[in-house]
Amino acid sequence: MTVKSSALLQTRCAVFGAGGFIGANLCLALQERVGRLVGFGRRAPPDALQNVEWVQGDFADPDAYDAALAGANAVIHLVGASTPASANTDMIADVMNNVVATLHFLDACRRHGVQRVIFVSSGGTIYGVPDVIPTPETYTPEPITAYGVSKLAIERYLSLYRHLHGLEYRALRVANPYGPFQSAAKGQGVVAAFMDKALAGQPIEVWGDGSVVRDYVYVADVVEAIIAAMSHDGPSRVFNIGGGRGHSLNELIGAISEAVGRPIQRTEKAARIIDAPRSVLDISRAQAELGWTPRTELSDGLARALAWRLGELAKVTAPV
Amino acid sequence: MTVKSSALLQTRCAVFGAGGFIGANLCLALQERVGRLVGFGRRAPPDALQNVEWVQGDFADPDAYDAALAGANAVIHLVGASTPASANTDMIADVMNNVVATLHFLDACRRHGVQRVIFVSSGGTIYGVPDVIPTPETYTPEPITAYGVSKLAIERYLSLYRHLHGLEYRALRVANPYGPFQSAAKGQGVVAAFMDKALAGQPIEVWGDGSVVRDYVYVADVVEAIIAAMSHDGPSRVFNIGGGRGHSLNELIGAISEAVGRPIQRTEKAARIIDAPRSVLDISRAQAELGWTPRTELSDGLARALAWRLGELAKVTAPV
Repeated sequence: MTVKSSALLQTRCAVFGAGGFIGANLCLALQERVGRLVGFGRRAPPDALQNVEWVQGDFADPDAYDAALAGANAVIHLVGASTPASANTDMIADVMNNVVATLHFLDACRRHGVQRVIFVSSGGTIYGVPDVIPTPETYTPEPITAYGVSKLAIERYLSLYRHLHGLEYRALRVANPYGPFQSAAKGQGVVAAFMDKALAGQPIEVWGDGSVVRDYVYVADVVEAIIAAMSHDGPSRVFNIGGGRGHSLNELIGAISEAVGRPIQRTEKAARIIDAPRSVLDISRAQAELGWTPRTELSDGLARALAWRLGELAKVTAPV
Repeated sequence: MTVKSSALLQTRCAVFGAGGFIGANLCLALQERVGRLVGFGRRAPPDALQNVEWVQGDFADPDAYDAALAGANAVIHLVGASTPASANTDMIADVMNNVVATLHFLDACRRHGVQRVIFVSSGGTIYGVPDVIPTPETYTPEPITAYGVSKLAIERYLSLYRHLHGLEYRALRVANPYGPFQSAAKGQGVVAAFMDKALAGQPIEVWGDGSVVRDYVYVADVVEAIIAAMSHDGPSRVFNIGGGRGHSLNELIGAISEAVGRPIQRTEKAARIIDAPRSVLDISRAQAELGWTPRTELSDGLARALAWRLGELAKVTAPV
């Protein structure tokens, strides 16, 4: 066992948004590696997390998560109460449920003596339409979605809490994560949506001509970045976490088609105003400082995501 | 009359925060120069603005300002519900009263067909502790006060509203304004505070050794920048508005002492964590694009500020 793992074993860790896509993957990875793990989620834990100590409640209600924070020295904040599309439709709700709720949360973290907060921010929306690709953390963020604006505001408040109150933090600007537990229904990304359509033999809807480039990162790699950030000690606090290169939607569709083993029908829709034409993160800071790098090729990640989805489908359709 | 002034005369203008420090100066300058002027303020208008059409109400209540927005094609948003010190003490109230209230306001502006919003942002706090002095608009803002974080968030939402809904805007990152109508009681800046103390023969409290450098800009110059921004047509939307150079607190105190004509006693207090050691704005973008430049030397501005304060004092002490 490495030195790093020993340090982790002393961590009493609380994961907020534990039942979600990244949260579920993170809890599965953490449960053997930290001294204590508490998950906080809006609903009962998914089946895979039945062994995780669980507190259920609404993130907008500070009283609800008091029990989850008690005794925790590291917390991971994965709660996202909106999607890039929904945030623009109701910016006020987005501010209330994300920014204001997080300020209440940081106050609670201070009260409970939490030492470090890891916040999963949005690498895909925070920079807006950058003219530097791949985009480094030093690029001035100019988000063009309310989703990105509120993530950025939260990063600033984290910096402020450190400055004013000594609450340490790391913010991970995660690109487009995909993999097990990603939900198509919750609008958590195109990979899940496209895969479900492909499995159902239905056509997928593509906004624009499919040339839009995104940075896809496999969720297990994101999880390793979060774990590295928990014990990171260095000058930087904000890290891009991406797959290391971009893929066009057309490439992604081709790769999914290959994984699924059948052609995918598509219908083209007009390009959306909230989409940047190209978003790829420069991950050299995370590679240098966190000693982290994405290890999963797109084809491998898609194969694993597919295997998980087939397993879920088998559960649903299995005779009782 | 210049072409610019003719264009201004067709403007139907609503000033929000009209009874405040910058607002009162702006209304006095605008009332002869625009087609229609409406002031919106929390209280009744100050005596000097008795001729300005006035709507009184709470900025946090959108119904309150409907009448002020009706028919306006340009609005100037000067409402600030907190100070750099108070915002840090209650960040949630700061977000609610500034960010959330402004989102409601922008929705109302859209409904009323407003063409342009001029927002007065904070040049003194938005950049944090910049390592480039004077600081240009392209410097990545990293505010170290909640006050700066919420101003920055509002700038981002303005950019978003333009992007999504075509609502044009300009954001002026104003340094440390001073001059007539500046209130010491409301914590609106050291010039008013120091001048009142000097006039009363009381010692002033100085945080730190007085070496802190700030960028003081006379309010009439700020008003001219706002008016220039109302009709500006160019690529930039965010402008630094400052005095063009920095002055240490010690220099400022010396200049006030000279204006008042007597020595000023001082008591030293520990430096505050929220103070950047040096804040001076690079105003070359505003000079190039707005055709604006600060015209008032510190000594002249202080003399005029003093004259105004003496006039106010005379009113208070005059026999009825």
